[in-house]
Amino acid sequence: MPQFRPVDEQLAYIKKGAAEIIRVDELRDKLKRSLDSGKPLRVKIGLDPTAPDLHLGHTVVLRKLKHFQDMGHTVIFLIGDFTGMIGDPTGRSVTRPPLSREQINQNATTYLAQAHKILDPSRIEIRYNSEWLDKLGSEGWIRLAAKYTVSQMLEREDFHKRFHDEKPIALHELLYPLAQGYDSVALEADVELGGTDQKFNLLVGRELQRAHGQPSQVVLTTPLLEGLDGVQKMSKSLNNAIGILEKPLDMYGKLMSVSDEMMWRYYELLTDLQLSEIEKLRHESHPMEAKKHLARRIVADFHSAEAAKQASEDWARQFQKDETPENVERVVVAYPEVAASGRDGHAVKLDKLLARCGLADSVSDASRKIKQKAVRVDGEVKTELILPVQLPTELLVRVGRNIRKVAIAA
Amino acid sequence: MPQFRPVDEQLAYIKKGAAEIIRVDELRDKLKRSLDSGKPLRVKIGLDPTAPDLHLGHTVVLRKLKHFQDMGHTVIFLIGDFTGMIGDPTGRSVTRPPLSREQINQNATTYLAQAHKILDPSRIEIRYNSEWLDKLGSEGWIRLAAKYTVSQMLEREDFHKRFHDEKPIALHELLYPLAQGYDSVALEADVELGGTDQKFNLLVGRELQRAHGQPSQVVLTTPLLEGLDGVQKMSKSLNNAIGILEKPLDMYGKLMSVSDEMMWRYYELLTDLQLSEIEKLRHESHPMEAKKHLARRIVADFHSAEAAKQASEDWARQFQKDETPENVERVVVAYPEVAASGRDGHAVKLDKLLARCGLADSVSDASRKIKQKAVRVDGEVKTELILPVQLPTELLVRVGRNIRKVAIAA
Repeated sequence: MPQFRPVDEQLAYIKKGAAEIIRVDELRDKLKRSLDSGKPLRVKIGLDPTAPDLHLGHTVVLRKLKHFQDMGHTVIFLIGDFTGMIGDPTGRSVTRPPLSREQINQNATTYLAQAHKILDPSRIEIRYNSEWLDKLGSEGWIRLAAKYTVSQMLEREDFHKRFHDEKPIALHELLYPLAQGYDSVALEADVELGGTDQKFNLLVGRELQRAHGQPSQVVLTTPLLEGLDGVQKMSKSLNNAIGILEKPLDMYGKLMSVSDEMMWRYYELLTDLQLSEIEKLRHESHPMEAKKHLARRIVADFHSAEAAKQASEDWARQFQKDETPENVERVVVAYPEVAASGRDGHAVKLDKLLARCGLADSVSDASRKIKQKAVRVDGEVKTELILPVQLPTELLVRVGRNIRKVAIAA
Repeated sequence: MPQFRPVDEQLAYIKKGAAEIIRVDELRDKLKRSLDSGKPLRVKIGLDPTAPDLHLGHTVVLRKLKHFQDMGHTVIFLIGDFTGMIGDPTGRSVTRPPLSREQINQNATTYLAQAHKILDPSRIEIRYNSEWLDKLGSEGWIRLAAKYTVSQMLEREDFHKRFHDEKPIALHELLYPLAQGYDSVALEADVELGGTDQKFNLLVGRELQRAHGQPSQVVLTTPLLEGLDGVQKMSKSLNNAIGILEKPLDMYGKLMSVSDEMMWRYYELLTDLQLSEIEKLRHESHPMEAKKHLARRIVADFHSAEAAKQASEDWARQFQKDETPENVERVVVAYPEVAASGRDGHAVKLDKLLARCGLADSVSDASRKIKQKAVRVDGEVKTELILPVQLPTELLVRVGRNIRKVAIAA
């Protein structure tokens, strides 16, 4: 029988970094009953077997699951093979091709291997929803569908939008959230976790459990993590992600490049530190030291403490070397407009300059990098487009980890 | 191998009295292929096992099925036991309680026994949709639902209205039309018949057959028959119906009470006469004779030629006796307002008079009967409320089969 911690202690640990908990009082009751009975809570997560390549954004919810494990509860990975095997039968979408049982198993294995970097594999229950959805049968589906109305389903944001934009919604698409909700019934889930974008589907589970005479699961959503730019959701396609399989030095360097503000958010969402510990760090440490600590901690999670130490040393050496003028490439940039520029002195447009000296692919790429606060001139982050200069000049320009000495030729 | 008539002859016979055929050219092609191949068409009708007590309104579609039988085709009675056994799982509606297999069989037997008064029992195929809908299973239902969109389904008039009135539509209700449509796929129906109110559901069958790579069924709708009042749809609850199990004399008398206009409609929808024959009757017969002929014909259909002859004689004797003054009850009605009524003579309100002389239960009942053209004064149908009278007077007032001599006392 597991040793559970006091309810308030569990609750504080679980609440850290959660976007929303529906509802906290129910969660408290469940934790109390679990403590009294010695029975762990059943904490469900739906696994998407089509995207097995994880980045740190995906780990936010996995880490929250780990917190439940840390508190002695049972994590259930629900693999949606029933719908996965059917795929999207409309054939309209290329994003949901039907997968074979083998493909699904393979994707699930890949996913779980990565999830095991965070979670304790011995305390995970893995279930496939074909186990009960296949059995549901014709009558079961009719009865299930009877428990929800068209209007309730069209309240889901994406359905609502498509309906009003007169874009087709096939009837089976309304059945998929029911399937996901029914999974919670079959699993007798106490808690279900998901990103904030999953809220509607998680709530369907609550409704269906109630309709089946079960206590409703608590819904806990985790925020969508911002990427390295600090603005957009972390995503491979936006090129602002840190993959959990990336090399230690790459991972370390990328983490060192985030803003101070993002650093504290990453502390909250990507570590097991309690809020009180994070507050202490924030007040007592220099931001640069705190950032190094974060980067080392995260690299250690996905590689090892040793690898993290090595990465930190390599990064420091490289950074120092990069900043050393004799190692920096010198370029002369033709910028004839500068002669006629300011009234009270000269100025260049920073985006143009970056594009011309090869630190950005184009002016618009340069402009994006400036907005992302990724550009430093003579050690200072620059966010304005107009850069006053004295002629003749030589600037030390840094974009991410690329650095140039830039001489401007009028 | 059945002997089929030429396509145009079949088509003319089938078209008579149909409200709509979608589409006539497809029906022509199907008839042609059937003629060429010697293969009868498969003509489907969905049977509602909850309302087994038939009146003439229900026979319109049955008679149209008979016309297909007359032309050598196969009639399929589809008994919706799958949905009938589930009933309405929301529990919201009392109109669709779940029925046991025994109740459904019993209702279907009662229904078919009545349908056999019109159709040839040896050329009816009886099928239960649980045969394939049970088998469809979880995956089958998802695939079926994928073939229709939410918007298409909400185009159905009653769904559309409920959706816009914000009255709940449970998701399973959207699945029922799919089930009905899939029946056509399973049966490989060539034609499906139904009332005009069934048009949407019948069209779903067309769509689903197409989606399953089958030729689409032709949809043939039959009009909703007006009742004895000539205005509202025939319905037991509106008290304007003729049940097919009613006694010969009752049936005969009710048929004799319809207006001349309705008589021709009944000829079209309730007999096997061809349009050309009906036109001939209309031009060559006295309406009263034509009506007697219709009444006798219909009574003969549901009873026997002998019973019809007997009913016609009994009715004539009773009618004559009713119209004989010495057999009519005389009442004196106090109507003091009449003294002060018209400027150019006297007048009474006919509805008041009917209520006071006992030929109507109330003034509003009387007014309804006048609107239904059921009131005759001195042999003439009266539709206006104001009845000019000369005092002293005695009127022969007839409401349906009740008759009084009415003296007015000022």
